[in-house]
Parts: sequence; C-alpha cells; structure tokens
Amino acid sequence: MGNRVEHLRAAVVGASGYSGAEVVRLLSRRPDVDLTALVAHSAAGQPLDALYPDLTGTVGATLTGLEQADLGDADVVFIALPSGEGMAVAESLIAGRARIIDLGGDLRLKDTGLYRRSYGHEHVAPGALREAVYGLPELHREAICTARVVANPGCYPTGALLALLPALQAGLVETEGISICSMSGVSGAGRSAKVEMSFAEVNENLRAYKVLAHQHVPEIESVLGEVAGTAVAVSFIPHLVPLTRGIHTTIHCRLRRPVGQEEVQALYRDQYASAPFVRVRTGPPEVRAVAHTNYFDVFPAVNERTGQLVLLSVIDNLVKGAAGQAVQNMNLMFGFPEDHGLRGRV
Amino acid sequence: MGNRVEHLRAAVVGASGYSGAEVVRLLSRRPDVDLTALVAHSAAGQPLDALYPDLTGTVGATLTGLEQADLGDADVVFIALPSGEGMAVAESLIAGRARIIDLGGDLRLKDTGLYRRSYGHEHVAPGALREAVYGLPELHREAICTARVVANPGCYPTGALLALLPALQAGLVETEGISICSMSGVSGAGRSAKVEMSFAEVNENLRAYKVLAHQHVPEIESVLGEVAGTAVAVSFIPHLVPLTRGIHTTIHCRLRRPVGQEEVQALYRDQYASAPFVRVRTGPPEVRAVAHTNYFDVFPAVNERTGQLVLLSVIDNLVKGAAGQAVQNMNLMFGFPEDHGLRGRV
Amino acid sequence: MGNRVEHLRAAVVGASGYSGAEVVRLLSRRPDVDLTALVAHSAAGQPLDALYPDLTGTVGATLTGLEQADLGDADVVFIALPSGEGMAVAESLIAGRARIIDLGGDLRLKDTGLYRRSYGHEHVAPGALREAVYGLPELHREAICTARVVANPGCYPTGALLALLPALQAGLVETEGISICSMSGVSGAGRSAKVEMSFAEVNENLRAYKVLAHQHVPEIESVLGEVAGTAVAVSFIPHLVPLTRGIHTTIHCRLRRPVGQEEVQALYRDQYASAPFVRVRTGPPEVRAVAHTNYFDVFPAVNERTGQLVLLSVIDNLVKGAAGQAVQNMNLMFGFPEDHGLRGRV
Amino acid sequence: MGNRVEHLRAAVVGASGYSGAEVVRLLSRRPDVDLTALVAHSAAGQPLDALYPDLTGTVGATLTGLEQADLGDADVVFIALPSGEGMAVAESLIAGRARIIDLGGDLRLKDTGLYRRSYGHEHVAPGALREAVYGLPELHREAICTARVVANPGCYPTGALLALLPALQAGLVETEGISICSMSGVSGAGRSAKVEMSFAEVNENLRAYKVLAHQHVPEIESVLGEVAGTAVAVSFIPHLVPLTRGIHTTIHCRLRRPVGQEEVQALYRDQYASAPFVRVRTGPPEVRAVAHTNYFDVFPAVNERTGQLVLLSVIDNLVKGAAGQAVQNMNLMFGFPEDHGLRGRV
Repeated sequence: MGNRVEHLRAAVVGASGYSGAEVVRLLSRRPDVDLTALVAHSAAGQPLDALYPDLTGTVGATLTGLEQADLGDADVVFIALPSGEGMAVAESLIAGRARIIDLGGDLRLKDTGLYRRSYGHEHVAPGALREAVYGLPELHREAICTARVVANPGCYPTGALLALLPALQAGLVETEGISICSMSGVSGAGRSAKVEMSFAEVNENLRAYKVLAHQHVPEIESVLGEVAGTAVAVSFIPHLVPLTRGIHTTIHCRLRRPVGQEEVQALYRDQYASAPFVRVRTGPPEVRAVAHTNYFDVFPAVNERTGQLVLLSVIDNLVKGAAGQAVQNMNLMFGFPEDHGLRGRV
Repeated sequence: MGNRVEHLRAAVVGASGYSGAEVVRLLSRRPDVDLTALVAHSAAGQPLDALYPDLTGTVGATLTGLEQADLGDADVVFIALPSGEGMAVAESLIAGRARIIDLGGDLRLKDTGLYRRSYGHEHVAPGALREAVYGLPELHREAICTARVVANPGCYPTGALLALLPALQAGLVETEGISICSMSGVSGAGRSAKVEMSFAEVNENLRAYKVLAHQHVPEIESVLGEVAGTAVAVSFIPHLVPLTRGIHTTIHCRLRRPVGQEEVQALYRDQYASAPFVRVRTGPPEVRAVAHTNYFDVFPAVNERTGQLVLLSVIDNLVKGAAGQAVQNMNLMFGFPEDHGLRGRV
Repeated sequence: MGNRVEHLRAAVVGASGYSGAEVVRLLSRRPDVDLTALVAHSAAGQPLDALYPDLTGTVGATLTGLEQADLGDADVVFIALPSGEGMAVAESLIAGRARIIDLGGDLRLKDTGLYRRSYGHEHVAPGALREAVYGLPELHREAICTARVVANPGCYPTGALLALLPALQAGLVETEGISICSMSGVSGAGRSAKVEMSFAEVNENLRAYKVLAHQHVPEIESVLGEVAGTAVAVSFIPHLVPLTRGIHTTIHCRLRRPVGQEEVQALYRDQYASAPFVRVRTGPPEVRAVAHTNYFDVFPAVNERTGQLVLLSVIDNLVKGAAGQAVQNMNLMFGFPEDHGLRGRV
Repeated sequence: MGNRVEHLRAAVVGASGYSGAEVVRLLSRRPDVDLTALVAHSAAGQPLDALYPDLTGTVGATLTGLEQADLGDADVVFIALPSGEGMAVAESLIAGRARIIDLGGDLRLKDTGLYRRSYGHEHVAPGALREAVYGLPELHREAICTARVVANPGCYPTGALLALLPALQAGLVETEGISICSMSGVSGAGRSAKVEMSFAEVNENLRAYKVLAHQHVPEIESVLGEVAGTAVAVSFIPHLVPLTRGIHTTIHCRLRRPVGQEEVQALYRDQYASAPFVRVRTGPPEVRAVAHTNYFDVFPAVNERTGQLVLLSVIDNLVKGAAGQAVQNMNLMFGFPEDHGLRGRV
C-alpha cells in the first residue's frame, strides 16, 4: 500500500449529506478517480444534482440504496453517515479489499466504553476499529499512508488540535486549563430538517449548545493526551453562528514559561513547514480565507500580561473539517501528492 | 436630584449614529419626554428619518449642527459621539444645568494616563470626568440616581461585567486567568463607511480583531478591580460575526472551591433579584432572546472536570449595550421606574 | 358591535407559530387586553417562552391543547393555524359569542370551488365563511368594524393589493398584464422543520417557488376583481430571499393614459390620507423601514418610456402581513383607535 | 488570431476589486497562463493576498501602480476598473500588441451620446470603441474569436439577455412591455467603503435602487434591439438583496402566440445546445446552483392564463457576470476550449 496508482475507483456512502456530496464534488474534478457508486438510502433513485443543483453538468450519477450498491470493486470507500450508522458499513467492508475512509465519529475513539458514553450507543465494529488510524495528516502522515482504515477527524477537533499541537509538542503550555471556544457555521450540523436549524431561527441569532457535553470532547482529549503523554481535560464550548461554512476556534492556555511572540510564531512555522495546508498567520485569521479551501489558518498570540497563549484558527468545516481532509487522506493512502486536486479554492 | 419629574426635556448629540438614533427611537415612545434637539454635524439639515426610514411618522425632527443647537434648557443631554469627540461636548455642558449621559468611552476611565494609552489621545474634560459615575445600574444604582454625569458602559464591558460580577463578589473565582471570548454583531462598530464592514466582507465571514488590544480591556479591568479589591488582568478576544445586533460573551474562569451547578445558579438569581433586566437562564442564552430588548441573559455553568466556571451571556449591543442602558440610567436619574419605557421588545 | 370596550379577553389558537406568537407579543403589551388562552397542540404543556425566549419575563403563560382550552368566554379568538386546520376551529366557535380573526387562508375566498382548487381540500366551514369579511382595513374598514368574523389577508396579498388598489380604483391602469414579483423572508413559511428552509439552504441563495401556482393568486385576483368590477388575472412570482422578516413587492402594470409622476404620487397620498399605517414614499422603499412595524410603504413610479406604472412596496410579513394587521382589525372591531398599540416599532 | 497558443501572458488592471481579483483567482489555476502584472493604484505595493487572504499560498504577487506596470509584453490585458477609468487604459493599449478584455462599461455602447447620457461623462476612447466586440459568447462567439478588444457584458445584462435572446430570436414575444426585475447580491457594487453597503444596512434589508435609471438599461436595450431588428424599450428594476454573490432575474414579456411549456423548453434547449455554460432548467433556478461557477441557469415558464412568458435566470455576478465570462472570452480569443479552466466550481 502507499504506492502511487494510476487510476482509482471510489465509492461514497452517504452521498446526499453535505460532507458526502462535498467528497463527490472534489472527486468529480479528478480525471484520475472514477466514482463507482453514490449511496444514499433516503434519496435512492434520485440524481444527486436534484439535491445539489450546482452539480448539473458535472456529476450525472444517480443515488442508490446500500443494498443495490456494489462496493466490492472500489479501491476506496468514503463513509459519510451519521455516527452510529457508519460503523456497520465499515465493518461489512473490512473483509474485502477496499480501503475505508470514515468521515463519521464511529472509528475515532479506541476506547469503546468512552465511545458508548459519548455517543449513547454500543460500538459494534471491532474489526474496523482495530485497523483505524486517526486521519489527521499533520500528525499521523506516516500511519495514514499505509492504513487500511482511516477515521477522518471531526470538524471541531481539526480546528482545535492543529492549533494546539505545536505548543503542546514543544512543552510550551500547561495541559490543564485549556479553554476552547469554537464558533461553527450551520452546515456542520448536516443536511436535515430541524426547526432549530431553520433560517428564521439561526439568522440574527447566536448561541452556545451542548455546553461541556459535546461528543467531540473525548476525541480532542484523546489526541491531546496521546501527544502530551498524560491525560488532558479541556473545556469546550461550541457556538452556532449564522454562516453556512466555517469554524473559528479561539483557545486560551497557560504558558509554562515566558515566551515572545516571534518565538511562538517561528515554532509554529517550523512545526508545519512540510504541511501543505497549514498557513501560520501574523494576525487574526478569517473564515473567508479558508472557505471552500482545504487550508487551516492559525495565529498564535502571546498574552504577556496574563501569561497565556491565545490560539486563533479557522477552517472550512466541510473541506478541511470533513471532505477535503478525507481526500487529503486518500491522496496519502494511494501515493498521490498530498495536495493533489485540493489546491486553492475547490 | 433623583426626584420624579413629570416631564423631561432631552437632547441627543450624535443622533445620526446607531446608538444615538436608538436613544431617539426609545425616547420617541415616551409621552413624558420631549426631544428638544437632535444634533449631528455630518447630517445637519436632514430629517433623521432620511437615515432611519422606520422613523417616518413617529420622529419628524431635523438634525442640527452643534453650533445651532440650544442644549441649555435640556434636563438631560445624551452624548453618542465617537470617543475623543464626546468629552468636549460634555465639558462644555458641565457649567450648565443639564445632566449628562455619555454613551462614548471618554468618561469611563478615571485614570487619564490609562485613557491616553487606551484611546491614543489626551483627556481634555477633567470637570466632566470628576463628576462621572460609571453607569452600570446593576452595580452602581445608588450613585447613578444622584449623578450629574453618567458614563454609560461599553457594549463589551456590559456583557462581560454583568456575567462576572456575582461570581467575583461572592469570591467564587480566581481573579487571575479570566478569559473572555466575545462575539459581536456589526452595528457595534457604528454607522460608517468602511470596506471591512461592508456586507460582502462580513457575510459568510468571522474573525477576531484588536486581539489583546481592545480599548474596552481597561474598562473591564477597572470595574473588576474595584469589585475584587485587587488589580485584575483579563484576556479579552473580540470577534466580528455576521449579524447586525447582539453580543455573545463566553467567559472561562477558575473556581476557588468546588461548587455545584445549583448553588451557582441560586447565587446569580439572588444577586440579581432586584434587577429588572437580568434573566438568569438554566441553559445557553440566545441572541434572539435579547435582540431589540434591554435584557441581559446569563447562564453560569460549572465545569466540574476542569474546575472552571463558564459564563455565557447575551445582550443587544445597541440596547442594553448602549441606548437602552442609557435610558435605564435616565430613568434612575430622574426618578422614573427603572424599566419605564423599556419593557419587552423596544 | 363596534363600541369601545374597556377591557378585552382574547385567546390565540396556534400560539406556537410565528404569526400566533407575534399576536401574543403584541397583545402582551396591551394593559387593556387579557390573554385567556394560548392554544398549540404540538407544544401543549410548554411555556410559550420555551419557544420564544424573548418573552421570558413578559409572557409567562403555558400552551394548552385545544380540548383543554376554554375559548367560550373570550371576546375575540385569533386563529393562526395552517390553512385547512383553522376553519374547523372557526366553525366550532360560530355558535358562541366570541368574534373571530382568522390569520390563515380558509376564510378568504368566498368561492368554495376556487378554495378547493387552490388549497387542495374541501371547505368545511360554511357558517364561518358566510360571516367572514376580508380584513384589509384600508379597503373594508366599515365592514370590519361590525364583522363577526374577519379573514385576515395573506402576507403577499397585503403587499400587492395595497400597492395596486389606488391605481385600479382610479382607473389608471389596465386590468390585464399585471405582473407581480414578490420577494419574501423565510418566516413567511412558518415555524417548521424543512430541509429547504434550513439556514444552510437559504443563506447565500435566492429562488422563485410555486411559480404561477401560489395559493395567494386567487386571493389577489378576487379582491382586484371586486375593486375593478371585472375579472382580473395576474401573474404572480414569489421568491424566497435570505432574510427573516419582510416582503418586497415589485409590480408592473400598463397605464391607460399618460400620467405624471407627481399626479400618481398625489393620487396615492389622497387615497391613503386616512390610513394610519400607509406611508407613500418618494423613492424606493426599504424592508428595514417596516421591519417590526405595522407600516406598509409604497412608491409608485411612472415609466414614461414604456407606458407602465411600477409599484414598489414593503411590509413586515409577520406584522402588517399577519399579526399586526390582525390586531389592527381587532382595534376596529372593538372600537379602539385603529393604531392603538401598533405605533412605531412593535 | 484565434489560433491556439501554448502559453499566454496576461495582465490585470484593477486587480484589487472584486472582479479583478476574481480574474486573478481564475487565471492562477491555469498552468498555461502567466500573470505578468497585477495593477491597482490604490493598493500599489501591497501583496494581493493582503486584501484576499484566501490567495495566500497560491498568488504571491504584489500590486503595482499603472505607471510602474509593463503591460507591453502581455498577450491579453484584463481591465477591471470603474466605468470612466477603464477606457483611458484601453485607448493607451490600442497601439500595442495586447488584446484587451474590458470588464467595465466603457466599451459596451457604440453610441457615444448614449454613453454620455448613461454614464454622465464623455467617451474618450474612440480607437478602442471601434475595435470592441460585445463579449457575450452565446451571441457573438465568432466575432469574439477574432476580436482585438472585447467589451465584457455587465452582470445584469448577462442575466437578462441570455434569458430573453431565444424567445426574441424565435419571434415568440412582443418587444414591447418587457419587464425585468433583477435581484443582486452586494458584491456587484464592487469593493468600496459606502455606508449603504455596510453589513448593518444591507442585512435583513431589501430595496430597489436606480429605479428606471440604471446605466445597464441602454446596454440591454442595444443588444435586444440588434437581435430584434427594432428599437426595444424595457423596464428594468434592480434590487439589492442580502447575499454576497448572485443575481436572480425575473422577466415578464407578452407572448405573440399561444405556445406550450414543452415547446418553449425545447426552443431554449435547442438554442443553447452548443453553449457549455447554459443549463435550461425545468423548474425555478437557484442562486446556490451557480455560485462560484460560470453557469447561467434559466427556466422559461408559460403563463397561459395571462398570455405571458416568464423567464427566471440566475448567475454568479462575479463569475458569469464578470470574471468568468471574461476568461471564457479569453479562451475563445486564444483558441482554448471555451470552458477551459471554468468547469464546475471555480
């Protein structure tokens, strides 16, 4: 595995959701990738462009039910299903030849007890979970290249982890008292019919939700703990803001020692020197800079008066926070250049 | 002073800005208040409803220049000018009989050196500053009732201070490490022609600004220091979000001792039992609940895992964060019921 | 009927929807109105402010089911239910003493065959329909004052009819070829869980819908026909635009004779001289001028080059297009001043 | 001219505006195009990505003043300046070898008297005007291929003309009484500091502007007149709606003869069979389907009751309405496939 292939056969399960459709959109631009199946039970029989009219003329495929789909001959299967539904598909594929990229939350936590407490149901895909590599390329590039199964990170964890990792890896900040304030656009909640996601309820509104209880908390803490070599507990407050795409993450943590702004800036640049999608900024990053791109922009700012490091980061939740990162992982898994098909606006 | 008057004569200087026009809007609903002068140099000669067409039929007055305006016979003058411009007007009025409510930042900091460092110019209104009472009714109600001059709090400080005060006053939290993450709608920046405030730049965008350098930091720290009895340094990160009205404030601070959710909730309710515009919520507050109202909604949440108190609050930046609070102060100064003309949606 | 009452007992059926809740909001400001019952089957048992958190502190009432509600002793019952549901409630009340204001579409068309073709189901409330007066105060003020049942106009018809009536009544325009292009905010679709009304689908989007097939077409044509004394067929294209509140209507019709801009302007002013909520503008009206108000703003513009009259109008669909107009009708029915409790921003 | 070149040297004058920057963004994706100069007087010396942070990492160029720029060796110069400024640049280039694509309004009207009345100043570029071909590829493909100068169409005209042309060319509709109701996002007004374009004024607002007096009227009428073979006068009402990108155009015109929905649909499909960016829809088109694409989507609908043809169309004003169409024209001028670099989302 990991050798460059000439041509890839890809299937997408959950192609009618925002993340799944974004995978389709990204892959449809690739002459070196064939889309062999687009699966979506609720919309089976409809052409995908009935749901996403921008695709008319570029994606002509029709959605099929899972039973009707032949996933067997795909080289890679993207699973973009709600947590709890994706793992069954992953487990059913584990005996076959296809490599798997799961965009849901089912394969991100190795501790199935923690999974049950976080997601509210039992884990039923031990085989897929055993094979799964957490797919944050900037942290696990090597392992992803040879992985059979990749657990694509959550959108909030991507924005928070990439901001925190260099500081933690350098031992610059305390592992206690990390406070994460994230603000997400609405597409992060998926394509679904809910009163609280209707325009009239979201527009000219802003609110926190799942305060201290979001299912992404254990995911963030697991990765931070792995990097820090010790258990880490964070405070995570997600907010819903009136925009369609984008996550802005603002993090406070305590510095272990006085450090200058230049030094921190240099540390981040060094750490991400080989990461094609990380841009270390010298001022506050903006959501519009990353919308419809696979970039992660970060600005680390030292607060000398309080001895804190403030980290500001932005991503597009559907691209770097989901579909774009999934394709980035696919590139690594199959020997393509990491940023192939993902440069600039996508 | 402080006795109930039957009828009030009020003037507004800076009536063409968002805050000034909102003062006019609020006072125009009051049969017991006469608007004697609406001053706005840049738009002098225009009827106010040419700028705010909702006012057609309810406010027919024409804007005048400062030189043309007769402010001498007003009982109260609202000053809603950019910081640096308001203090000269205040100082010129201090020899007269009118009481003054300044919505700008010029009279909020008693330390003129701190003022200069924060606002970038010298303070030139010593007389007005000497008389000025910081107009946060929930903290300084008594002093406001008899004040000659009221310095109306800034929008961000209102949202942050009202959230923090009960915890600080009860000695529940450390004064170090207070991290304030605020998200503001665009009207807080005032009515002005700036590329970065244009719809095309703000919509589908979100960014922090003036990171660790906002002029509201010393205002917040001054009041917190007064309450805590010790110098307080906070980390304050303001964000610009795509909504017109509203500020959401999310604060992390460290608990001094373990405390239960119920106890904190009760503490906040007790502390604000007599505050007509504070609503202590049992879940995350929403901007839409306070838009076009003078309410401050707050939800204090204990994070037992990290030993932190998380405070979530919302206000309408133009009402409780500016014009509504100014009228609330006027009510106190002239003996009206505190919530007179300010109940419900305004 | 029509005599001024001192105190009114009012009930609202369908209080959990946007229009119904807006009726409650408006009536809660009235010391002369008691809310005796708030009915909402789907949310029965919940306090109304659980759905509309701005109401906390001003409306404390709990929603009840229709069976539990005692509507018998109300002076007036507002029905704000989806079309098809409201008429059964109206019919059940017709034997009692309460007067009825129906905000739905069930009692607006006298022709039950036309109703069936427009709404897709049979009409089952002959008694209520017989008593019903079409509640456009600017056209039917006299009849409304003494009506037992008022059919409150639809939001689109309000914006279109008030714009067209003076020109039609004056015989200024042809009754053929009237083209109506309306753009509505999302709250007009009601409070409901639909993918196509979710923020992510509406934001940065704009589309026409129900092209030439909207159920408001026969309502518009019926009233125009009544005024013109001849059958009128219009082309009506509604558009969904990304705003919460507001309808902008742009109408083209053919002038019967050359006419000057001044003459048309004067005609409109004369026609609406006694209408407290109509503002005839001399330039394009704006949605923000009428948001949260009961105003209807209109700008009639003569296109001399093409011999057309262009009519531009705006309303708040939830106020003048629904709840505000309903309260305006209530005022007329019970002898209050027409604009009582409805002046300025509400 | 018209032969395929291997490699193109392109310059952009006015690269700091929304349209100019979009040209840069589109060309930066092309390995076969070199950007030789990015000119912007107001921002000279700044890197373009200081204004458009999404470009960091893909466009590293710095803006230069016009005097400093060497446009002489470019194969093609894109001019994206406000009307009145662009023609001087075009005229100065006409003696050189570069071919010119002007995105402004200066070279679209052959009648300089009409130009003066529409734009308020004299025309001063007779040489460029003489060479200019109106760059609507779906109408003038042949002429564009060999043109020295292309006048790229305005955004509103693109949306209106492409909708009307098939019906007019087929003689299906009257040339009198064409009523055009357009709704545009804010980016169409360009990147500039204006109070009326600020977020707080545009959000939750909607208004018509330049009613019957927009400078695009003569452009539309000129092209329609050319196609119809007779003078055409239209009524054109542009509206500003709260979205960043996109124009929706709704047109009413009178049918000359009864025609069925199927026949019209077939006519449009036939007419645009070879147009790679036109999609004839069978239902109302949506702005989101064309945002960030070069597509023009149209839905022609017959209103049998009124004998009218209703045309609904959408474009992205910055792509098909400006930069995308300009690159489409460049493709034709230099022998590239018409849709080269413009497929799907761009």
